[in-house]
Amino acid sequence: MERHFERELEELKEQLLLMGGRSESIVLKAVEALRRRDETLAHEVFADDKVIDRMELDIDERCVRLLALQQPMARDLRFITAALKINNDLERVGDHAVNIAGSAVRLAVQPLLKPLVDIPRMADLAGGMLREALDAFVHRDAETARRLCAGDDVVDQLNRQVFRELVSFMVEDPGTITRAMELILVSRNLERVADLATNVAEEVVFIAEARVIKHHAEDAEQGEDFGRS
Amino acid sequence: MERHFERELEELKEQLLLMGGRSESIVLKAVEALRRRDETLAHEVFADDKVIDRMELDIDERCVRLLALQQPMARDLRFITAALKINNDLERVGDHAVNIAGSAVRLAVQPLLKPLVDIPRMADLAGGMLREALDAFVHRDAETARRLCAGDDVVDQLNRQVFRELVSFMVEDPGTITRAMELILVSRNLERVADLATNVAEEVVFIAEARVIKHHAEDAEQGEDFGRS
Repeated sequence: MERHFERELEELKEQLLLMGGRSESIVLKAVEALRRRDETLAHEVFADDKVIDRMELDIDERCVRLLALQQPMARDLRFITAALKINNDLERVGDHAVNIAGSAVRLAVQPLLKPLVDIPRMADLAGGMLREALDAFVHRDAETARRLCAGDDVVDQLNRQVFRELVSFMVEDPGTITRAMELILVSRNLERVADLATNVAEEVVFIAEARVIKHHAEDAEQGEDFGRS
Repeated sequence: MERHFERELEELKEQLLLMGGRSESIVLKAVEALRRRDETLAHEVFADDKVIDRMELDIDERCVRLLALQQPMARDLRFITAALKINNDLERVGDHAVNIAGSAVRLAVQPLLKPLVDIPRMADLAGGMLREALDAFVHRDAETARRLCAGDDVVDQLNRQVFRELVSFMVEDPGTITRAMELILVSRNLERVADLATNVAEEVVFIAEARVIKHHAEDAEQGEDFGRS
C-alpha cells in the first residue's frame, strides 16, 4: 500500500510537469500566432486549451483518489492539496492563452500597429517562470521558489511599459485605438500568467514553511489536536 | 469522532459563507469608491483584502485538518477539495476588488469622464452571482448552480457594451484615453468576478454529477479500486 501510494504520488508529479509544459507552450504558441499574424496557429491554441482542461480533470481525479487511498501524512497531504491548487492555476494559464489567441485572430485582419518586442519577451519570461515554479514544486525546492516570487517584478514593469507606449500610440492617432487596446489586453494576460507562476512558487514556499513550523507539522503527522478551530 | 467531523464540516461551511460575504462586499465597496470618487473608501478596500487573505489561509488550514482528521467519505472528500478551490476563487475576487480600488484612487484626482451606470450594475450582478453560488455550494443545490453558469452571459454582454462605449469616447477625444482605459479595466475585473462566481457554480455541478455517476462514488466510499490510473 505504502509503495503503491508513493508510485501514485510520482505519477501525480509527472502529470503536473506535463501539464506545466503544456501551459507554457500554449502561451508561447498564442504569442507566436499574434506575432506572425497566423490565424491557423491561433486556432490550434483553442484546441490545445481543451486538452489542458481535460488534463485538469484527470489531475483533480488523481488528487482526490490519493486523498481517499489512505490518510496521507502531513507532508504528503500538503503536497496533494497544493497540487490541487496548482492544477487550477495551470488551467487558468490556458485560459489566458485563449484570450491572447482571440486577440491574435482579431488583429490578423487589421494593419500591423507595430512590430512586437516587449510582448514576446514577457511571454518568454512568464513561460520560464512557470517552468521553474513547477520544477521547484516537484523537487520541493523552496529556495528557487522564493527567488521566483521576487522575479515577478520584471514582468510587471514590462506590462506598465507596454501600457504607456500603447496609450501614446492611441493619443497620437485615434485610428490605432482598437488595435492598441488588444495589445494592452494581451500584455495584461501575460502579466496574469506571471502572477499564476508566482502563485505556484508561493505554494512551494508555503509547504516549506509549514514544515519549518515544527509543532504544526508534527501535530498533523500524529493525527492529534485537530479539534482546535 | 464522526460527530466531531460533522461539526468541523459545518464550521467550514460557515467560514466559507462568511468569506463569500466579505468578497461580495469588497467588490461593491470598490465600485462605490469609484462611483463616489472616494479615496478613503478605496483605501478601506486594500485593508479589507488583507483580512480576506488571512481568511483564505484559515480556511485552507481547516480543509487540510479535515482531510487529516479522518478519511472522509467520497461525498465529503469532494466537498472539501471543492472548498479548497472555492476558497482560492474567493481570494481572487478580493484581488479584483483591489485592482478596481486602484483605478478608483487614480481616477479620483482626474475630471469625471461620465457618470457610471453599467459598471455599478455589473458589480451588483457579479456580487449577486457570488452570493448565490456560495449558497448553492453549502446547500449542494445543483439546480441553482446550473442556472448561474448560464447567467454569466449578461455580465459578459455588459462588459462588451462598456468596452464599445469607452472606445468611442477615446476615438472622439484622445484626452479621455487614460480615464477610459481605467474604466475598461474595471469592467474587465468585474467580468472576472462573475467568471469566478461561475467557477464556484461549476464546482457545485461537478460535485452533483460525480454523485450521479454512481459506480464512481461507490468505489470511493468503499475505498476500493483507486489503483487505476
